Amino acid sequence: MDWRLVFEKNLYHGTFQQMKISVLTFDNFNELDSFIALGILNRVKKPGWKVSIASPTKTVTSMNGVTVHAQASLSDANTSDAVLFGSGMKTREIANDDSIMGQLKLNPAHQLIGAQCSGTYMLSKLGLLNSVPACTDLLSRPWVQEAGVEVLNQPFFAKGNVATAGGCLSAQYLATWVIARLEGIEAARSALHYVAPVGEKDIYTERGIAQVQAYLV
Amino acid sequence: MDWRLVFEKNLYHGTFQQMKISVLTFDNFNELDSFIALGILNRVKKPGWKVSIASPTKTVTSMNGVTVHAQASLSDANTSDAVLFGSGMKTREIANDDSIMGQLKLNPAHQLIGAQCSGTYMLSKLGLLNSVPACTDLLSRPWVQEAGVEVLNQPFFAKGNVATAGGCLSAQYLATWVIARLEGIEAARSALHYVAPVGEKDIYTERGIAQVQAYLV
Repeated sequence: MDWRLVFEKNLYHGTFQQMKISVLTFDNFNELDSFIALGILNRVKKPGWKVSIASPTKTVTSMNGVTVHAQASLSDANTSDAVLFGSGMKTREIANDDSIMGQLKLNPAHQLIGAQCSGTYMLSKLGLLNSVPACTDLLSRPWVQEAGVEVLNQPFFAKGNVATAGGCLSAQYLATWVIARLEGIEAARSALHYVAPVGEKDIYTERGIAQVQAYLV
Repeated sequence: MDWRLVFEKNLYHGTFQQMKISVLTFDNFNELDSFIALGILNRVKKPGWKVSIASPTKTVTSMNGVTVHAQASLSDANTSDAVLFGSGMKTREIANDDSIMGQLKLNPAHQLIGAQCSGTYMLSKLGLLNSVPACTDLLSRPWVQEAGVEVLNQPFFAKGNVATAGGCLSAQYLATWVIARLEGIEAARSALHYVAPVGEKDIYTERGIAQVQAYLV
């Protein structure tokens, strides 16, 4: 073993670079949004890379009755390198509940922040979308617009450190963007390639990369 | 209220047609496989349509440490109209554990049976793939072949009531096939359209329908 290399690596990365990602998941959540992101993000196999379902309570139950144990709290999200807002059937109610939203102290200057479908509404309520157009799903569209946000007719958009996606399966683009930003485009390509359908891996990978590439800063 | 209509509806459907679907989910499961299927299948909004995570224990923990409460048992799967095998990191071990697999008494003459990625290995161990070629993921491919199954380089294949899919995101095709078989092609199209990324809804929907249409009997 070359100890100089080990030393340099630890010097550079701390004792393994920590990279914390929180997938915010609330009661009545949409399984597709939270778990597609979580599954793809976990394709990065590096020590220190940690992806968690983060919730305000110890367990949350999905819109289809699936109860899941949180792996992290909302305050853990505040110290995460990336935070993704999932969506669900109670988003508006939760977005207006200060006892929940007040726990979030996010800072897009230091964190990547993304939202999926109705999660975009939460971003706007937190003041994270000032003058930034955004993506959301077709059902959430009217009330995201009512909140003063310009809604785009596309699956993914990012400006700087804030990204949004619309339509459950576009969770793959949000995850791709996070990996590309934190680990590079090749790591994102590799994660997408792994999860893509057999026989369609190139189509899926290239489309996913194309969706996010224009927004990498 | 027109009681004749209510009477006719109940006569036609029983007192609402029951349609039970079990998504078999074992310890160390892959979240993408189980939850993409569950999420899309739950887009069918009909009384009596019931989709459940079915597991051998009250809770199961995913390959990425997410603990989920089962909504049904393995014996519930035996009386389901459709049963989908998810995949995971302990599939081979579980497939060879008679205390688990022995609880399954499935009958492809009366049930739709599908499997995703390493779940295909479980189908072969249960004798449900005799001489039927199948899809699986690239990592599971060698040991599915070792079990005597011809593995196809495509995302989805079905013969009669048995279907297989390969690559996590092909879970969408398995769900599409189940909906198309149980509720018709328009219901499948509608479910896919709902979950597809905004701006890509037609591409996703048509591709999904095209994947399963040749196999609808």
